[in-house]
Amino acid sequence: MKKRIGFMGLGTMGRPMAENILRNGYPLTVYNRTREKCAMLRELGAFVAATPRELAERSDVVVTMVPGPEAVLALLTGEDGCARGMGPHSVFVNMGTMAPAYAREIAASLRPLGVACVDAPVSGSRRPAEEGRLVVLAGGPAEVVDALRPLFLTMGRKVIHCGAQGQGAMAKMVVNLLLGVMMEGVGEMLNFGRRGGLDDATLFDVLDSGPLACDLFAAKQDMLRTGAYPAQFALRNMDRDMRAILDTAAAAGAATPAANAVSQLYRAACARGRSDMDVAAVMGVLEALSGDGTR
Amino acid sequence: MKKRIGFMGLGTMGRPMAENILRNGYPLTVYNRTREKCAMLRELGAFVAATPRELAERSDVVVTMVPGPEAVLALLTGEDGCARGMGPHSVFVNMGTMAPAYAREIAASLRPLGVACVDAPVSGSRRPAEEGRLVVLAGGPAEVVDALRPLFLTMGRKVIHCGAQGQGAMAKMVVNLLLGVMMEGVGEMLNFGRRGGLDDATLFDVLDSGPLACDLFAAKQDMLRTGAYPAQFALRNMDRDMRAILDTAAAAGAATPAANAVSQLYRAACARGRSDMDVAAVMGVLEALSGDGTR
Amino acid sequence: MKKRIGFMGLGTMGRPMAENILRNGYPLTVYNRTREKCAMLRELGAFVAATPRELAERSDVVVTMVPGPEAVLALLTGEDGCARGMGPHSVFVNMGTMAPAYAREIAASLRPLGVACVDAPVSGSRRPAEEGRLVVLAGGPAEVVDALRPLFLTMGRKVIHCGAQGQGAMAKMVVNLLLGVMMEGVGEMLNFGRRGGLDDATLFDVLDSGPLACDLFAAKQDMLRTGAYPAQFALRNMDRDMRAILDTAAAAGAATPAANAVSQLYRAACARGRSDMDVAAVMGVLEALSGDGTR
Amino acid sequence: MKKRIGFMGLGTMGRPMAENILRNGYPLTVYNRTREKCAMLRELGAFVAATPRELAERSDVVVTMVPGPEAVLALLTGEDGCARGMGPHSVFVNMGTMAPAYAREIAASLRPLGVACVDAPVSGSRRPAEEGRLVVLAGGPAEVVDALRPLFLTMGRKVIHCGAQGQGAMAKMVVNLLLGVMMEGVGEMLNFGRRGGLDDATLFDVLDSGPLACDLFAAKQDMLRTGAYPAQFALRNMDRDMRAILDTAAAAGAATPAANAVSQLYRAACARGRSDMDVAAVMGVLEALSGDGTR
Repeated sequence: MKKRIGFMGLGTMGRPMAENILRNGYPLTVYNRTREKCAMLRELGAFVAATPRELAERSDVVVTMVPGPEAVLALLTGEDGCARGMGPHSVFVNMGTMAPAYAREIAASLRPLGVACVDAPVSGSRRPAEEGRLVVLAGGPAEVVDALRPLFLTMGRKVIHCGAQGQGAMAKMVVNLLLGVMMEGVGEMLNFGRRGGLDDATLFDVLDSGPLACDLFAAKQDMLRTGAYPAQFALRNMDRDMRAILDTAAAAGAATPAANAVSQLYRAACARGRSDMDVAAVMGVLEALSGDGTR
Repeated sequence: MKKRIGFMGLGTMGRPMAENILRNGYPLTVYNRTREKCAMLRELGAFVAATPRELAERSDVVVTMVPGPEAVLALLTGEDGCARGMGPHSVFVNMGTMAPAYAREIAASLRPLGVACVDAPVSGSRRPAEEGRLVVLAGGPAEVVDALRPLFLTMGRKVIHCGAQGQGAMAKMVVNLLLGVMMEGVGEMLNFGRRGGLDDATLFDVLDSGPLACDLFAAKQDMLRTGAYPAQFALRNMDRDMRAILDTAAAAGAATPAANAVSQLYRAACARGRSDMDVAAVMGVLEALSGDGTR
Repeated sequence: MKKRIGFMGLGTMGRPMAENILRNGYPLTVYNRTREKCAMLRELGAFVAATPRELAERSDVVVTMVPGPEAVLALLTGEDGCARGMGPHSVFVNMGTMAPAYAREIAASLRPLGVACVDAPVSGSRRPAEEGRLVVLAGGPAEVVDALRPLFLTMGRKVIHCGAQGQGAMAKMVVNLLLGVMMEGVGEMLNFGRRGGLDDATLFDVLDSGPLACDLFAAKQDMLRTGAYPAQFALRNMDRDMRAILDTAAAAGAATPAANAVSQLYRAACARGRSDMDVAAVMGVLEALSGDGTR
Repeated sequence: MKKRIGFMGLGTMGRPMAENILRNGYPLTVYNRTREKCAMLRELGAFVAATPRELAERSDVVVTMVPGPEAVLALLTGEDGCARGMGPHSVFVNMGTMAPAYAREIAASLRPLGVACVDAPVSGSRRPAEEGRLVVLAGGPAEVVDALRPLFLTMGRKVIHCGAQGQGAMAKMVVNLLLGVMMEGVGEMLNFGRRGGLDDATLFDVLDSGPLACDLFAAKQDMLRTGAYPAQFALRNMDRDMRAILDTAAAAGAATPAANAVSQLYRAACARGRSDMDVAAVMGVLEALSGDGTR
């Protein structure tokens, strides 16, 4: 019999992920701070819990997909928190992006309750979430991760077991570091090319035809051509992730000169009121920083 | 009848490019400062010229594939320079990486002789050169570039006409800027991941499975795993290119914070005696800059 | 009658500070984890407490001068911690460098005990500490800071009241950010100048004669000329401070491109086994990153 | 008898320098592309030449104080250029900021005419120029520099002989590198401090009281407090100098991570239409890059 799943956090990523769980036949309970976001899932057959605690009481596996440690803590703790509804039968799966140290802290805090913990952030943004093609980066005991594999494969096309608790979170940090560098880097390239007199058709042809072509650049191409940046991965989240990445890298003593440099641009993009736009909107900062080349 | 080609600069890239021209049935004259490098091409049927001038006199199209403006100038000028052997019938094609301003200078200097000029650097390194799968980024008059297309397609799988003289060089600058950022970025990612406790199998699985996967990272994976860096694209060339890129970007007023940061790492890699290794050896600088995370 | 002072943390800075308190006639109790460091102060007339708690019980004002939050916490908490020995009569003064958020946390945690808190880090390193010429950057209630002024002036030549609790810590963050940038900057200048053929006599004459001359550069000149770097302000402390600075700046949304860049160099200096040398030893990283200019 | 001086370039710096030469009793001929700027000097007794050539013919020492190599070249060359008016009796002194390589090129180009060349850029901006308190950084043959010392001391308070031709220019490069880093660094400090809740009175008191205090920060304090930036050293000149500095550093293989980072900010300041403001206006870029800290 299929496990009962509780899913909290029905945002840009969470909603399509929850839908895919439901479509694959799992009994699903959902919870979201803003209740309206539950409506569509209720229509599809999910039970809407009144509190995280109620959700946990009705579930074998409790999944959170919310941004940042404070949001996770708000769901976990307190009288109505899901911790009160979990026990030795429960598995807690945090699929949001978080620092490895934080993932290990949560696991430690739930250990006395006998709850098994897995950190399982995902690689991929909105469209892959909708199409069930995410890659799940899982950290936790091998047998627990193995047992979750069928569940994860409703949301993603691949599960990578990265190591013990915190190592899924760590894998997500390194992916987002490189993503942050590449996204800003392609912005530098395009902005430089345009100022150097190359047109967009040429620039993207050059990019697509060479060894640097990748799904990220393909996914952002329309945004970069048109200058409209509807969020697939919002700048405010990149800015928050970059802080966690640089802090974790500092603790690990890892040199990150490029990530340090680009983090300033993401911060600046948020400062310019672009927090809710896609990360590709970092392009606007590069444009603003650039002169007219006639000095 | 096929045009007579003169090819100068038989290095890592130039030799396989010249071979592909020959294999496709073009009459070929070659010249190289170090004569020994001509031996294999002579065996394959090329004529070996004693001087650039002799080469030019025997050719309709004169191609150079040498690093940096000084090397081009040494072939062009002087009593034995190829300029003396060219005339209104000649086309001069510079396939090395150079600043757009420099490409335009050469074109201007050959205009009085009636020589048509095309800058046509290539995207791709040694293996694509061997397999005739380079991408040729051409700048110059459309009709001249069109006439050269069959020749270019012996060396590459695609020709992109980027605009007037200098725009092929410009396109190469922007590609190499992004390449420089991405190569260093993937080094930051891997070094950070390793220090964070992830093993290489996991790291490359994560990289290969996500939206950042690209031919560049695939081509460098063995080097990055083993720590041996035989040159496909030598660090000394990246260091020289980065100087030209940043100088051109400064003249264009284009913001390049990440390129600025990574250029320091390529310089440092050369300073550490790694000039002749592949660009991927920038990884060694990141490792040297990183602590043990236990401070 | 003079207040009874308890002083914990007799390191490079703490010992001369404590001596100056004693010399000015204050009854002094000292505590240090490593007992031997108390010997000289005992000879000068200080009482050596067995535990932080005992120290607090014998003191009106409890001063800590230890690096980092963990070290402060170790003195504050537990059965033998100084918190147990303080009450409404006590003032707690943290003179180490710390993040403002952390200074406010400590103040909040001691409020229930009725203990008044002041964060009072100092500007200046070993020599000014010995000569009683530090500048005290104090955060806390005005009347408490005013009452402490005579005590502070035994250690320093000036007290600046920076605002409420945490603002002394904040002022120290901003000073150390600029110090970190300037120290690395003067290293870049000298290394560049030497590679450009200028001798040290000329370089320091130029530096001393112009508008950039300052006490910091004067204090480090011998180190930079000789390449020997006995610690006045150890690299490991700068590396730790930089992490706190960048984290605080990120939380405040403040752009810090230069601090971000130089933080990597301080990290690298520690990675190269220079943690116990003076911050001026960042010069060695710049030298290692530099080529020979003949490439 | 005093030497006859010819002075070209009567801008922000050049005019007060020329006035000081005149006040000290030297026969002075001046030339400026924009004739009106010569009016005041004519009133003070200078002869106004119609062309650089005429100026050179009337002078023993020809001084230029113009920004950038193109401007120098425009004065030197052509039918009316000062080169035509100089000979073995002449000394050519370039007091503008320029790359050392360029200073050596000029010297080489004038050698056939028997003209002695000295590069002698100055440390200090408008006010020191007015007060004759500049520091002259001279490169050239010792005996020529020595002979010029009385002349230089009408404009400055000190002459530093930095070495052969080009080394005065080199010394100016290293000063401006550090100046660029420190100016941006103090901007980071102040912006960070303000966002962290410190008021300006406190911030400048902290800065003035510590080991980082220097004439540069004192000179810019009013600008930084008020946000009005009348040019003493214009951003457009810093932007141009930074390009020459980074290019020279790259050629010397010198690591310049902080200079690289801050150069982007000066470029951005120009891009934001601030080219004619003082370098201190880089502060505006830092403010624009900073968020509100409430994200």
